Amino acid sequence: MSLWQSIADQLRGEIARGKWPPGTRLPPESDLAARFGVNRHTVRHATRVLADEGLLYSRRGAGVFVAASPVDYPLSERVRFHRNIALSGKVPGRIIDTVVTRPSGDAEAAALRLEPGALVHVCEGVSLVDFKPVALFRSIYPADLLPDLPVMLRREESVTRALAASGVEDYKRLSTRITARIADAVQAAKLQIEPGDALLRTEGLSRWQDRMVERALTWWAAERVTLTLPHPEV
Amino acid sequence: MSLWQSIADQLRGEIARGKWPPGTRLPPESDLAARFGVNRHTVRHATRVLADEGLLYSRRGAGVFVAASPVDYPLSERVRFHRNIALSGKVPGRIIDTVVTRPSGDAEAAALRLEPGALVHVCEGVSLVDFKPVALFRSIYPADLLPDLPVMLRREESVTRALAASGVEDYKRLSTRITARIADAVQAAKLQIEPGDALLRTEGLSRWQDRMVERALTWWAAERVTLTLPHPEV
Repeated sequence: MSLWQSIADQLRGEIARGKWPPGTRLPPESDLAARFGVNRHTVRHATRVLADEGLLYSRRGAGVFVAASPVDYPLSERVRFHRNIALSGKVPGRIIDTVVTRPSGDAEAAALRLEPGALVHVCEGVSLVDFKPVALFRSIYPADLLPDLPVMLRREESVTRALAASGVEDYKRLSTRITARIADAVQAAKLQIEPGDALLRTEGLSRWQDRMVERALTWWAAERVTLTLPHPEV
Repeated sequence: MSLWQSIADQLRGEIARGKWPPGTRLPPESDLAARFGVNRHTVRHATRVLADEGLLYSRRGAGVFVAASPVDYPLSERVRFHRNIALSGKVPGRIIDTVVTRPSGDAEAAALRLEPGALVHVCEGVSLVDFKPVALFRSIYPADLLPDLPVMLRREESVTRALAASGVEDYKRLSTRITARIADAVQAAKLQIEPGDALLRTEGLSRWQDRMVERALTWWAAERVTLTLPHPEV
């Protein structure tokens, strides 16, 4: 086994045993090089491999940090935040910032298959796992189909329940698009991360009977969440 | 329709008609505010919505840019880079940097269900679409199952063909994990993006018969690729 592999395995073990808790900054390369009796190039090779595995991440100009063991969030046909998080043994939560009813813009109307300018409800806020923010959301609903949804969103603890209370049960995810962005100052403040940190952005479209019922934009703090695709068993 | 929506729709139309080609920096907020006869807050609201839709993206300290219309890359049970890209009417390509045969590290052995230290082939390089880099890859294969894969990887133009030439046909994706990271200097140089730009990171595990046949780590330039999940039709 090469030198960098044995150093990577050793650091991996120390992270697993909690010597370096999530969020800790790793000692500088020169310190690690001295500790292991190797040159900095070898240390960098080892930490780069651990970063590739997702155990470490770098912040520009600030060094290398131990990643929090991220929440696995399965993307399936029925995407339900509260149930997904509860199933992983954690506490789901939600803070709604705004619920606004307004005319749709062109892109919103096109996604929901509405006439341009048709009324939509727009719900924005923060999703929590174990009382920590993990994602920002902006979800858009056709107002004609769900006239009383604003009240239900405020009253019920999850979107699934609010939709059920408005008569929409068993809606299904039709498509999901995934990309990445960096956090701006506003997003970073709301997510309690740093501006410039990585965000996963998902755009989901859900259907109920013959209508598009939800367009959900979500910005996930990438250091806290891993999206998973469970492909069907062979 | 509110002021910011009409400005957003107008800018969206101009982007669609090619007035602002991909990669262009949008004029400063103050210029746009003067042009539309509104205050900067309204302009910011409009550009933020377009950024949320993925049409614009910001670079820290450098301003707001028009995003290239990204390649849609479907994540399905059979993930095949060359075929996926060719099906979208673009030219797939690949540059292999290194093909190395070496003992596996702990994480690699665990993922491929090998004894720790068992030999693996590691293939690293850059994936291209229309001759532009879109992703970095590091793919790992069990050497005992595929003794002649290094030669096949160098000889054949795609991984799928190299695996077929080594006797592995119709392998299937078992799981995919997706997160986001920011690009470091090395990654940025290889992908021709800027350090600090967003990367999508995927980790795929594929099976053939009763063996794990590939662990594929990929770092996608987020401004050039959107991963898509086509959920089954209802």
